[in-house]
This record gives sequence, structure tokens and C-alpha cells, in this order.
Amino acid sequence: MKNQELALVIGNAIEQEQFDTALEQLTPLRPIDIADILAEIAPSLAWRLLDRLPNRATVFSYLDADVQELLARAFPRANLARVVGEMPSDERTDLYKHLDQAQKDALLPALAQAKREDIRKLAAYQEGTAGALMSSDYATLEPNMNVSTALATLRVEAPDAETIYHAYVIDSERKLLGVVSLRALILAAPHTLMHNLMISAPVHCKVDDNQEDVAKTVARYDLIALPITDEHGALVGIVTHDDAMDVASDEATDDFHKSGGVTSIVGKLKDASIGVLYRKRVFWLVLLVFGNLFSGAGIAHFEDIIAANLVLVFFLPLLVDSGGNAGSQSATLMVRALATGDVVMRDWFRLLGKETLVALCLGATMAVAVSAIGYMRGDEVVALVLAMSMMSVVMIGCVVGMSLPFVLNKLGFDPASASAPLITSVCDASGVIIYLFIASRFLALG
Amino acid sequence: MKNQELALVIGNAIEQEQFDTALEQLTPLRPIDIADILAEIAPSLAWRLLDRLPNRATVFSYLDADVQELLARAFPRANLARVVGEMPSDERTDLYKHLDQAQKDALLPALAQAKREDIRKLAAYQEGTAGALMSSDYATLEPNMNVSTALATLRVEAPDAETIYHAYVIDSERKLLGVVSLRALILAAPHTLMHNLMISAPVHCKVDDNQEDVAKTVARYDLIALPITDEHGALVGIVTHDDAMDVASDEATDDFHKSGGVTSIVGKLKDASIGVLYRKRVFWLVLLVFGNLFSGAGIAHFEDIIAANLVLVFFLPLLVDSGGNAGSQSATLMVRALATGDVVMRDWFRLLGKETLVALCLGATMAVAVSAIGYMRGDEVVALVLAMSMMSVVMIGCVVGMSLPFVLNKLGFDPASASAPLITSVCDASGVIIYLFIASRFLALG
Repeated sequence: MKNQELALVIGNAIEQEQFDTALEQLTPLRPIDIADILAEIAPSLAWRLLDRLPNRATVFSYLDADVQELLARAFPRANLARVVGEMPSDERTDLYKHLDQAQKDALLPALAQAKREDIRKLAAYQEGTAGALMSSDYATLEPNMNVSTALATLRVEAPDAETIYHAYVIDSERKLLGVVSLRALILAAPHTLMHNLMISAPVHCKVDDNQEDVAKTVARYDLIALPITDEHGALVGIVTHDDAMDVASDEATDDFHKSGGVTSIVGKLKDASIGVLYRKRVFWLVLLVFGNLFSGAGIAHFEDIIAANLVLVFFLPLLVDSGGNAGSQSATLMVRALATGDVVMRDWFRLLGKETLVALCLGATMAVAVSAIGYMRGDEVVALVLAMSMMSVVMIGCVVGMSLPFVLNKLGFDPASASAPLITSVCDASGVIIYLFIASRFLALG
Repeated sequence: MKNQELALVIGNAIEQEQFDTALEQLTPLRPIDIADILAEIAPSLAWRLLDRLPNRATVFSYLDADVQELLARAFPRANLARVVGEMPSDERTDLYKHLDQAQKDALLPALAQAKREDIRKLAAYQEGTAGALMSSDYATLEPNMNVSTALATLRVEAPDAETIYHAYVIDSERKLLGVVSLRALILAAPHTLMHNLMISAPVHCKVDDNQEDVAKTVARYDLIALPITDEHGALVGIVTHDDAMDVASDEATDDFHKSGGVTSIVGKLKDASIGVLYRKRVFWLVLLVFGNLFSGAGIAHFEDIIAANLVLVFFLPLLVDSGGNAGSQSATLMVRALATGDVVMRDWFRLLGKETLVALCLGATMAVAVSAIGYMRGDEVVALVLAMSMMSVVMIGCVVGMSLPFVLNKLGFDPASASAPLITSVCDASGVIIYLFIASRFLALG
């Protein structure tokens, strides 16, 4: 609410060209907070204030892609080019990729030659790779520089670098030799040479590495920034800790959605259209309807035993669900453990053994519970049928739920696609058939 | 495999007291990689090598809590106290909290007075708060220091501080006045005073803030470290970006598990015992069995209509599952959006409207699919019953799935507890009753 009120006040000030009043309200705020307020103001007004902010490029970078695009349309070309020119290279490239062709064609010629080339280079990397995530704004040093020269170099590079807390030592062919921290620099004697001060063979990723691996590497080694190299070992960019944290969060959201049977949604749920929400969800739901052809066929096959023992129907929803629920639990544990790296492919066999034992215990508990209810509603034969069926259904659910993420991973799919609806579907059909098969062995045809 | 082989070689070297050989293998590695290898070696051997590593405290900090505890038992008291004394304050406190009383009593007197007090202070904060997460190793400056003095101060504080890239300006009562970055320091003229250089009223959290909010604040403002203040505004600690990233990942895992119907597991899945896995999963599964009493009662009530129209049973698993699946999708989207902050409580009403429209579209699609199959197996009346039931079941599933996380949040529970098994349970009973009720209006009793 407060943001919206402030946005109203500031919007009015801009309309009356009282830019100083508006700037006074905004300048004490952090860039992302300013961005949140500007997002509430009409683009035709907002660009005029944004253009006057000392940290306009940073603020612009924090806006959502769709707001950036609207503002880019409102901005006069020369002013837009100036703001875009000041943006960090990774944010600039992301913006460029979101513009339509006409906007791209208008913007590019207005940018300096070096920035144009930088955009073209960065935009060429495939989405989801380290290349598409990295920034080309990093500080470099030479191996034979001493500490005084290195500090002087960093002072010059600071305005354009995303971080100067890590500087990268490269040779004449830009090959990554080592990393020097600013902490080490200010603690070292002035004449120390970089090749003595640097950490050699630093942790790095390749441009075509998956962004998930980049985020994991940053997290594992607690890095402020991770250097990215090309196929020749030359330094081409860095990924900073904050971008890695965003990737980790996006990947978690993605896995979360997939596990719930929603193909991933790009952007904020609040802003997603009904059409997008429908399309992302309908696939798994309808697939289930057709998966039901199997359980339906199972029921048709055992129609006589059901007709003679209607008590079986009481427990059909429960037995069918229990397999799916136990399986979803197993899949949830595996999918997340594979995502965080707690579990790797070669652990499958050992985990399968453990899962089987857990499933036995869970199945036994469930069997006791369900057969107690079965005995009350039916007799001891019904109780026995239910106990045996529940045992089997839970075992199958657990083994399927546990193995499916591994199988999907092995086949090159995302293990998170082992979603609750998929496992429910598989367990439905097998649950129905097992239950009625066991029933047909023990119960009379009437 | 490589780690295990290296661990074998190094374990042998330690047994033969060839420490130089062992150290030669380890020193080029990063601390966390050394920790992974030491974890594979018997504690009675591992401590002897760890004690000789120049970065022993850092390596020790990277070990899992259970390995730390085993090593702490193997270490002679004086050596352990030395390593523990060198550890970062947050890691030291975590270790201390994991030790048993006898170990605590042995360790405390061997530590320096200041470290003892620091442990007592940090260990007093409640788990899950900023206080329990923060480190007391930060660098402070005074407002009237100039740049030269500030840099000299940071050089002195550097060995003990978690970061010197952000230093905190405090007054004589330790009240947090501002933050100065090392970047600003090395760019500023030597005589600039801190109160002119600092960013005033910096972003900070309170000691009793939830650790999830701490992680969100670090992510939102892209911070390297977040200062933590007490109720008087005095600086008492910092949370670094890497610890915030770990919290974000742990919280995501926790939500993921809860959504899958697993009460959260502490530690790595690979190492979890069968007993722990059983206990974390059995609750939701057994609850479902008793939830089934309701759907069972529904079926009992409509027994005659089922007996006369056995074709209804074919579609029972499908109808029951569809509500649960659609509901799980809704809940998944809401739980994650609430966790990332994309959606807040006051959005509920607007989202409910959107969800209802999405549910209408999804329900209609499913109704068409299921009534086609129903027509093939039965007749046009069965097709109509199925279409109407499917519509209702999907609508109910979506509204329940969407609202439950909000309701739980409002009641003070974790919204992630709106798990797939819970929603399945609710949708089972309502699905069965709606389906059979509609059938009883349209189908004859035979």
C-alpha cells in the first residue's frame, strides 16, 4: 500500500514537472525499492524521472522484464541508449533479448561499438547456460603486476566492474591463471607480484555448463563471483553470488512446480494469465484420464467379484490413493536430493534397498490400520485381502516413486518430472489390478 | 570414487606417520574438497592430519555435524580447543550446540575467555532466527575515522573478520550508523571521513527475525553480508551471502518435503536411517486411512446405486484422483509463490477469482475427455453424470488446493503443510460423495 501511495505522489510531481521533489523522495531508497515504486507509475511519466536518477542504470536493471520493455518504448532513443549503455552487461543482454526486432534495430546503432559487440556476443549463448548468465564486467590483472600497480588498476576498473573483490589474473591470450582477492591485496606488501599472491587454477565453470551447476559451484565454494572460461581456457565472464542465488531459487521453483504436475511457469504467478495457467496444467490432468483406461480395464475384468462383494468398493479410493501418496513421498525425497546433489546416480541401488525396507514398515503399518477398518465393515477375509493389498500397493508406490526420478535422469529428462500426478497415474492402475486380483483369490463370486 | 581412493592413500600415509606426503596431496585443494576427503578417513587418523593443516579451522567448519562430533571425540582436548578457537564464530557455535554435555564441559574451560562468552551469547539465540545464524566476526569503523585510518583498521581486523568487503560504522554504544564498502574505501580520497563515505541507515535485520526473512533480504538487496541488530539498534552480528544461500536452499528443501507429505528431514537423505524415514512419512499416510472413513461412508450411503450401475466403479479412481491432482497443482503454485514472496496474503481474493476461471477451463476439458470414455463404456446418461461430476470435483480440488496454503498461513502454520496427501484426502471424500450424489439423481436403481 505504501508503495502505491508514494507512486501516486511521485507520479503527480512528474506530471507537474517537479522533478526535484520526486527525486528527493526516491534518492534515500535502495535501487530495488525505487524500481518497485517506478513500476507502479505510467511508463510515459516514469521514464522521465528514471532518466534523472544518478543510479538510473542500476534501478532500471532491477525492474521486471515486462516493465523494462514498456519503459524502453516510452524512452526517446538517445536517452534509452545512454541508460542501456550504463547497465551491467548481463542485465543489458537480458533486456536486449526481450525487445522486439524494431526496438533492437533502433537501439543497437545508438550504442557504442564495444557495447554492441558485447551484446551480440553474450546474446549468442544458449539460455540456461553459464554463458547466458554471465557478465563481461570483471576486473583483470597481469601475473607480473605488483600490489601497488594492481590496486591502481582496480581503481580504474572499479566503475565498470561488477565486483573488484575478486580480480582475475590472465595471460596475454586471456587464459585464466588465477584469482586475487582484494582482501589479499590490501594485506600484502606493495611489491608482491600477482603470480605469487594469486590462488592458481581457481574454481571455474565453462560457458556451456548448465546454470544449475554454476549455482551449485558458487554455493559449494562460497564464492563472491565464479569465473567462466571458453573451450580454450580463456576468461570470458563471471557469475556473481547474487545471480547464482537467483538461479538456485528459480531452479527450486521449477522443480517444485514440476513435482506438483505443473510444467514450469516463467515469471510471477500473480501476473500469469489464465491461458498460461491452463496450458501449464492441463497436460498432466488429461494424461491421467487416459491413464485411467488401464485401471478401468482392470475393474471391468473383475466386475463379477465386485458385484458379489460390494464392500470392496468402499476401500477402492483408499488403496488407489495410498500407493500414489507413498510414491509421491519417495519421489519428493529423491527429486530434491538429486537437485541438491545429496544423492547421485550411483547411489540408486543402495537407496533402493533402504527404500524397500522403509516401504515394508510403512506398508505394514497401513495394513494394520486398513484391516482394522475392513474387519469392522466386512469380515476377517476382507481384512486379510485389504492387508495384503495395502502392503503390495505401498511397496509398488515406493519403488516406482523412488526409481522414476533416477530413470528419468538417466534418459536425459529432468528428474522433477516424476510428478505426483504421474506417479498417481501409475499407481492407480497397478493398485486396482493388485487389489482385485487378491480379492478374486480369497472372496467368493457370491 | 576418486575421493575414496585418495582417502585410502592418505589414511595409509597417516598411519605410517608420513604427514608431509599426506599434506602435499591435500594443500592444493579447496577447504571443502579437503573436508570431503577427511570425512572418508577414520577419525582417529583424520584428526592428526587435520591438526597439521594450515587452514584446519576452515576445513573443520566444512565437515558435516556428525563427522565434526566424531572428530571432536578423537582430538586431544588442547588441540581441539585450538582448532575450535580458530573457527568462525557461527560455525563454532553450531559445533558447540551439537556436542554432548561432557564434551561441552571439557571444551569450554580450554577456550579463551572471550570465545567462551561469545559461544554462550550466540548459543542462546533460538534456532531458526537471525541470531542463531549470524557470526560475530565482523569489522567495525568509527564515524570520524578517515580513509587511511579505516584501511589500517581493516588490515588489523582482517584475519578475524568473515568479510572486510563491508565494514560497519558504529557509535560508542555500538549503534549501527552505516555501512562502508571496501570498494568505496579504496576509491575515496585518504582524508574522507567515514560519516561522509558511509551509506546511512543500511538494510539490516533484527536478532529475532526469522532466518527465512534474513535469506530473502540478502537475496533482494544482493548483499555480501547483512548486519543484524538487537532491540536497541546495536550491531551484534552479520549474516554472510553464503550462509543466506544455504538457508534459502534448506528452506526450499523443507517446503518441497512438506508438499510431498514428508515432515522435514534434517541432514542428508543418503545418511538418514530407516527409522527416521519411517517416522517422517507414516503420519500423513495413516491419517489418510482414517480420512477414508468419510469416503467409505459416502460409498455405503449410495451402495444401492452402485450395485445397480456397476459402470460407476470404473470411473471412481479417476474422479477421486482428478480432484486431488488439480488441487495439488494449485497448492504447489501457491505454496512456492508464498515462499518466494511473489504472492502475499492480501492477494488471496484476486487469485481465488483467477483460480476459479482456470479451474472452469480445466474442469471442462477433463469433462469432455471423461464423458467421451464414459459414452463408450456406458451411455449418454453416464457420460452426462461423469461430465458434471468431473467439473465439480476439479473445481473443488482447485479451490481447496489454492485456499488451504492461505488458511494454514493465517492460522500460523507453514503453508507448505498443504501437502499432496492432505489435499488428496480432502478431495477423496468430497469427490466420492459428489459423484455418487449426481449419479443417484440421474441413474435408476435398477
